[in-house]
Amino acid sequence: MATSTYTNRRILLASRPDGTPTTHNFRLEDGPAPEPSEGEVLLKILYLSLDPYMRWRMNAAKSYAKPVEVGDTMEGGTVAEVVRSRHPDFSEGDIVLSHSGWQKYAVSGGNGLRKLDPSQAPITTALGVLGMPGFTAYSGLLTIGQPKPGETVVVAAASGAVGSAVGQIARIKGARAVGIAGGADKCAFVRNELGFDAVIDHRTPDFAAQLASACPEGIDVYFENVGGRVWDAVFPLFNEFARIPVCGLIAQYNHGADGFPGPDRLPLVMRDILSKSLLVRGFIQREFVDQRPAFYREGSEWIASGSLRYREDVVDGIDNAPEAFIGLLDGRNFGKLIVRVATE
Amino acid sequence: MATSTYTNRRILLASRPDGTPTTHNFRLEDGPAPEPSEGEVLLKILYLSLDPYMRWRMNAAKSYAKPVEVGDTMEGGTVAEVVRSRHPDFSEGDIVLSHSGWQKYAVSGGNGLRKLDPSQAPITTALGVLGMPGFTAYSGLLTIGQPKPGETVVVAAASGAVGSAVGQIARIKGARAVGIAGGADKCAFVRNELGFDAVIDHRTPDFAAQLASACPEGIDVYFENVGGRVWDAVFPLFNEFARIPVCGLIAQYNHGADGFPGPDRLPLVMRDILSKSLLVRGFIQREFVDQRPAFYREGSEWIASGSLRYREDVVDGIDNAPEAFIGLLDGRNFGKLIVRVATE
Repeated sequence: MATSTYTNRRILLASRPDGTPTTHNFRLEDGPAPEPSEGEVLLKILYLSLDPYMRWRMNAAKSYAKPVEVGDTMEGGTVAEVVRSRHPDFSEGDIVLSHSGWQKYAVSGGNGLRKLDPSQAPITTALGVLGMPGFTAYSGLLTIGQPKPGETVVVAAASGAVGSAVGQIARIKGARAVGIAGGADKCAFVRNELGFDAVIDHRTPDFAAQLASACPEGIDVYFENVGGRVWDAVFPLFNEFARIPVCGLIAQYNHGADGFPGPDRLPLVMRDILSKSLLVRGFIQREFVDQRPAFYREGSEWIASGSLRYREDVVDGIDNAPEAFIGLLDGRNFGKLIVRVATE
Repeated sequence: MATSTYTNRRILLASRPDGTPTTHNFRLEDGPAPEPSEGEVLLKILYLSLDPYMRWRMNAAKSYAKPVEVGDTMEGGTVAEVVRSRHPDFSEGDIVLSHSGWQKYAVSGGNGLRKLDPSQAPITTALGVLGMPGFTAYSGLLTIGQPKPGETVVVAAASGAVGSAVGQIARIKGARAVGIAGGADKCAFVRNELGFDAVIDHRTPDFAAQLASACPEGIDVYFENVGGRVWDAVFPLFNEFARIPVCGLIAQYNHGADGFPGPDRLPLVMRDILSKSLLVRGFIQREFVDQRPAFYREGSEWIASGSLRYREDVVDGIDNAPEAFIGLLDGRNFGKLIVRVATE
């Protein structure tokens, strides 16, 4: 039996969180890296993406994907380098997008690997603006939201990986983009760097009034990616035939029923769905897999031309992933949160 | 000044109801019928349609249409005979669909009148199965619900004008139709006369369990036309990608927030909209006006072939319209509720 030349380090789910996760819900484990069999490659993880959906995977309940079992490696999207190849399609040195989870090394049979071209865009963008978050924005906004020139598109978490792309793509399509973000720094970034037409700080006491005056002609598309009290301010502003793609409820992941629209809101919601002919549609980006080639092509062009900008928040070392992930759920990151796994 | 040869009788909105309307909210008024000017016709109302949406028009608040003002004639769809014509397109004896409201005579400039062919279908069907309720079922089910062969379609108020058409059109498209109705007579009618695959009495104590066993493969389309506690039983059964056209919430018209999903239901609703990728879409049939010619053509064929059946509940005399309307809101009618206005 061959002995591995690499030492792996993995972050496991140690226990299921009750509400907000703590570092105690994670456990670090070292051991030999796995050996690739015939038809497999050994991947050295360069970057790990941290995303809100991972919070759901920590629960026992099935949502739209299998939960991570206690004792298993936390899952996640990764950018990796092929360091050994026994697979005809991959060579040592290839850079690939994989879903290898929170660890330093992984073996893959090649299924689901996508080769990246480092000369086309920085390889980390495959985890963000040109990856799952960017595609969530692209597919949900264009397929469900369908913004038209002159319409008003509102998105929360506007400095984040999904929200920043939603607003910029809305503007590319000729719509007005109104962002919601937390704190002066993020708001300045959304307004000045991303070029949104307006941005509102949800921490200000008169948030709802400010949002209303930033949307003098109402809201035609609300890209719902946070849940929580933002909904209360958005809801009265919907125009007839407004569209509401629902892609994630980050404020909800931790808190059970908290953070959702207040109990007295439901009659209003259902009545307005009828009287304003609203469209509410939940979605997961993989439903729109056929659109991915168009997204990679258009997204790369938009990045090259400067009309789609992005910001990354890079944390060094896999040991720091749990802390960074907890901060993500609390809104402490600023830009797409990525862990640089291969630090030496 | 010419004196009318006809005496009109109108039902006015006397006061706005607080919750369930009573007969005191209506007032009967007699007077001379109006005289048609050049370019107008005088209509003798033969039949008046009573529909749940009228309850909303009695409120002061604007919904998707203007409220009826206190002192004005109650509005409503009608089938009428042209008894005097000063309009080039209409002759005495023509039968037309009009929106003349709760009265015996009305003048019209011709706008919005649609000539009916009594040899094609009974003229009352223009108020029901071949009218607004039938078109609500047709457009909402086919455009939003999009039932596929083998899928399960659930509709409440299944013996009513909209619900009965929803289930039968679902079956024409190859789907399974599961109806919900109140009481043994209505359930027998839905099962035996309309041919639904299953029907559940919502008055039975184990209603939710019965619905679940009538939908062993879950629910793909729920045509929401009632609101109220039916929603609670339907919601857990949705399949991934289920579609929910929302066309009316009759249980809600009277009761403010009552009859709506319980306050604790909202987090579940939003979470399931996301995790099951649900589509919820409010609509008013007039949005789909382009589909009306196809509906008249297909609907007539389906009626002729016996695959689209209907039942009418005809009340004699306009004096009885308020009582009949109050009964409609309480579910006491059985079939499309129509008032025969011209009784002599």
